Amino acid sequence: MFERIDHIGIAVTDLEEAIELYEKTFGMPVTHRETVAEQGVSIAMLQTAESHVELMQPTGEDTPVGRFIAKRGPGIHHIGYAVPDIEAALVDVKAAGLRLIDEKPRRGAADSRVAFLHPTATGGVLTELIESAH
Amino acid sequence: MFERIDHIGIAVTDLEEAIELYEKTFGMPVTHRETVAEQGVSIAMLQTAESHVELMQPTGEDTPVGRFIAKRGPGIHHIGYAVPDIEAALVDVKAAGLRLIDEKPRRGAADSRVAFLHPTATGGVLTELIESAH
Repeated sequence: MFERIDHIGIAVTDLEEAIELYEKTFGMPVTHRETVAEQGVSIAMLQTAESHVELMQPTGEDTPVGRFIAKRGPGIHHIGYAVPDIEAALVDVKAAGLRLIDEKPRRGAADSRVAFLHPTATGGVLTELIESAH
Repeated sequence: MFERIDHIGIAVTDLEEAIELYEKTFGMPVTHRETVAEQGVSIAMLQTAESHVELMQPTGEDTPVGRFIAKRGPGIHHIGYAVPDIEAALVDVKAAGLRLIDEKPRRGAADSRVAFLHPTATGGVLTELIESAH
């Protein structure tokens, strides 16, 4: 069902500083930047082969990523897996008895459609399903 | 420098239960299993496209992954990036002023050679460089 790792989401406190590290030192080009207002994050996507690193700086403290950083510090936040058909994938994970955060897909970065599984269903790993726009 | 995401390391409390989820529900085949005694973990590698998920169950409480779970609970532990030449990569990250856990490569799973950067150098993300044996 999961075709590939689409991206790893990383919570950062300073997006420009983090881009400097990943782009200059680690050699990953930035392919997309966006502020997703409804999720309270400014993001940068950096490419490595067929996957991305998604650096996420919260737009404020009272946002999901802001609360994550306050509680656990900056660091790895979630794994996003590419699925060919997000509705079909949600039917499958529901049938497997997994608890969902999103019963229906919602808009993600770059006009993708996304849904999160609940970390209690996946051993503490916040897991995102993503059907890209292209 | 980083060619692709080689794997995501996930700390788990019950390896068989975790394999069940990733293999049966998420559809990733197990490609390798091993107990790495010197690191105190039993691991399973599951494939998705060109990357892997590495499930890691500690062999005891007084191991790096055992202490991680005691402190933070099970969940995402590290990101491993494939590099073509690990000695050259270590020279580059040292030249960039990044703090290392391993100054020299050591043996990883499946006869790979690995080295970890210190999470304080990378915004709280435990980052592994990996040169595979093949």
